[in-house]
Amino acid sequence: MSEKSGQPTTARIEAFSDGVVAILITIMILELKVPFAVLEHNSLPELLRSVGPPLLSYVLSFIAIAITLLNHHSLMRIAPHATPGLYWVNALLLFFMSLIPLATKALGDNPSGTLAVAFYGVILGATSVGFTLVHAYVETLAAAHGRVNPRRRRDIWIDVLSCAVYFLGAALAFVSVYLSFAAYVGVPTIYFIPRYGNRSET
Amino acid sequence: MSEKSGQPTTARIEAFSDGVVAILITIMILELKVPFAVLEHNSLPELLRSVGPPLLSYVLSFIAIAITLLNHHSLMRIAPHATPGLYWVNALLLFFMSLIPLATKALGDNPSGTLAVAFYGVILGATSVGFTLVHAYVETLAAAHGRVNPRRRRDIWIDVLSCAVYFLGAALAFVSVYLSFAAYVGVPTIYFIPRYGNRSET
Amino acid sequence: MSEKSGQPTTARIEAFSDGVVAILITIMILELKVPFAVLEHNSLPELLRSVGPPLLSYVLSFIAIAITLLNHHSLMRIAPHATPGLYWVNALLLFFMSLIPLATKALGDNPSGTLAVAFYGVILGATSVGFTLVHAYVETLAAAHGRVNPRRRRDIWIDVLSCAVYFLGAALAFVSVYLSFAAYVGVPTIYFIPRYGNRSET
Amino acid sequence: MSEKSGQPTTARIEAFSDGVVAILITIMILELKVPFAVLEHNSLPELLRSVGPPLLSYVLSFIAIAITLLNHHSLMRIAPHATPGLYWVNALLLFFMSLIPLATKALGDNPSGTLAVAFYGVILGATSVGFTLVHAYVETLAAAHGRVNPRRRRDIWIDVLSCAVYFLGAALAFVSVYLSFAAYVGVPTIYFIPRYGNRSET
Repeated sequence: MSEKSGQPTTARIEAFSDGVVAILITIMILELKVPFAVLEHNSLPELLRSVGPPLLSYVLSFIAIAITLLNHHSLMRIAPHATPGLYWVNALLLFFMSLIPLATKALGDNPSGTLAVAFYGVILGATSVGFTLVHAYVETLAAAHGRVNPRRRRDIWIDVLSCAVYFLGAALAFVSVYLSFAAYVGVPTIYFIPRYGNRSET
Repeated sequence: MSEKSGQPTTARIEAFSDGVVAILITIMILELKVPFAVLEHNSLPELLRSVGPPLLSYVLSFIAIAITLLNHHSLMRIAPHATPGLYWVNALLLFFMSLIPLATKALGDNPSGTLAVAFYGVILGATSVGFTLVHAYVETLAAAHGRVNPRRRRDIWIDVLSCAVYFLGAALAFVSVYLSFAAYVGVPTIYFIPRYGNRSET
Repeated sequence: MSEKSGQPTTARIEAFSDGVVAILITIMILELKVPFAVLEHNSLPELLRSVGPPLLSYVLSFIAIAITLLNHHSLMRIAPHATPGLYWVNALLLFFMSLIPLATKALGDNPSGTLAVAFYGVILGATSVGFTLVHAYVETLAAAHGRVNPRRRRDIWIDVLSCAVYFLGAALAFVSVYLSFAAYVGVPTIYFIPRYGNRSET
Repeated sequence: MSEKSGQPTTARIEAFSDGVVAILITIMILELKVPFAVLEHNSLPELLRSVGPPLLSYVLSFIAIAITLLNHHSLMRIAPHATPGLYWVNALLLFFMSLIPLATKALGDNPSGTLAVAFYGVILGATSVGFTLVHAYVETLAAAHGRVNPRRRRDIWIDVLSCAVYFLGAALAFVSVYLSFAAYVGVPTIYFIPRYGNRSET
């Protein structure tokens, strides 16, 4: 273990983050219930109507978490070493991510409820703020070691944009929840298209 | 950490997948309940009758997951390095696997319900599709690095076969759930016999 | 990663086992409930009476699992490399371990119920059988690489003894649950005293 | 893996501890429920009133656990190698930590209940005792290898102080729960200010 000498690596921060994310994804499954009374009458449309919203809500959160984790993998490769500061901004990110199952269940159970839809956006927006802080912190560490990548630094604006879209989506729930859904589906789209291409070349 | 320089290794994809699978296995346990009212009257046959179907359903899913994880270990050893594409096909596999506890509970609680039995086959079939995609992607990556193993490539047909058997089993639930059970027990058997021998020699 | 070339290491088997065990320990916590109605009346003796049995049951299982995991760490250090056979005996061990939270809850909720007490012994005994098989398999692998340690091989008899004591304890529940408790407390004691000293010198 | 030869590293103890902590954090989330009846009436103040105490209780425990884990990372870097003794003091720490979700739920559901507030302090105090023992054990191991750091050894008194403050806070619940809250918020403050600066220089 190189950890035993010199600067600590980010290995344990990575492993801990992966563990938390793995559990978050699977906790959301615990909340998904197949309605057994409906199953007994074997009615497919009713089954879909009651399983649909929670399942779509789960898919949306799964994709948001998967994107965050992939970008987290990229960032940790850049981080020169672990510092208490990195540990704490990462802990803040994990704290907000840990609230995603709560928001996912609220959204799945009340897909047309203003507060539930707004709550989802606030939690996902807070997660994006957490990720933006980790990104900014890692860039600062990398810069202190002379490893500056201008394009990667510019990606911070994509992080900031997704924070803004999530919070905007939360606010729009008080107008129409469909506008919120457009925002929540829009953020993964932002990440998938431009930033993703950049990352794969890094 | 070799991750800090050059191409990223598959270490974090492996660790994350292991974490998700570990949690899936144990989530299924949370759903298993020993009926305490029955326990108090100390009636063994009643205990077996009520615990039996959920436990057998758990055993079936445990074996299917264990086979998938073992084959996943083999595949990741072949993958030359991590790419965003590998991350995403792997995320798709994990998404479908994450629905296995839901299907296992549905099957354990309604072992003679058409929809529950069919649902199990659809989820396990989707997991097989996910695994087939990971396998195909890894072979493409390996081929690009000149590491082609014809026998291993042929194994993809075993993946495709197991997808087909699971989906066939799901469809057969509308005829007789016993035909479905034959299919669901059959797939692990396919994996155990031929492919397994090949893998251990690799 | 040395896994990329030559024989696969046991790293992923270890990581996966650690993950499963970590979750098992914490699943048991989910089953522990502080009785809030009692808490509101602030009656300490009633609180202890209702929390006591589940908590003691948890402590017993925690110690049994911690011993198994420590011995598992020792065994994996001996294993020269990962094989499908090792994966499968280990999966059998994890399967039986995964039933420990179920047995722990049954015992905690029915500390004087014959079937619940017997069920605990059967599951813990099955776990010991699983561990014995892993131990025997690892010794066979080690012997094939010329790494024989006579004292360590003799430890297999301690594994067999603990299987026997657990199953005996399960049978004794039909006579008196107190005899069962003596057996279940006895097994950790076996492990702690003789084998433990040997291991620490290895 | 250097584990295969010579002294075992602390890698598996670290990974196992990270796994347990990751699950503890996320188990606490399972206990947080958004009150859907309240959500349907879209009343923000009522929502805050019912979600507030459990959420604050979660934040308090999250911070306490994050501090413990960060200090645990530092300690394990110092530990020259894994020993059964280290495994067991670490298992004791994990045992007490595993009770934190239980205490967090008790506090969140009964923020003005004497016993619930005292219970929280006892569990957090026991966790601090566990950490103090790990710290002392690691210092002994390090001293045996001639790696003494006087300032780091002095940090043990900070551990002892936080044990005392938690237990004092638990006792004060019988006078006023607000005194307890002051103590429980005070401990993270102790850790954040002096010890933290020391650690980051190590």
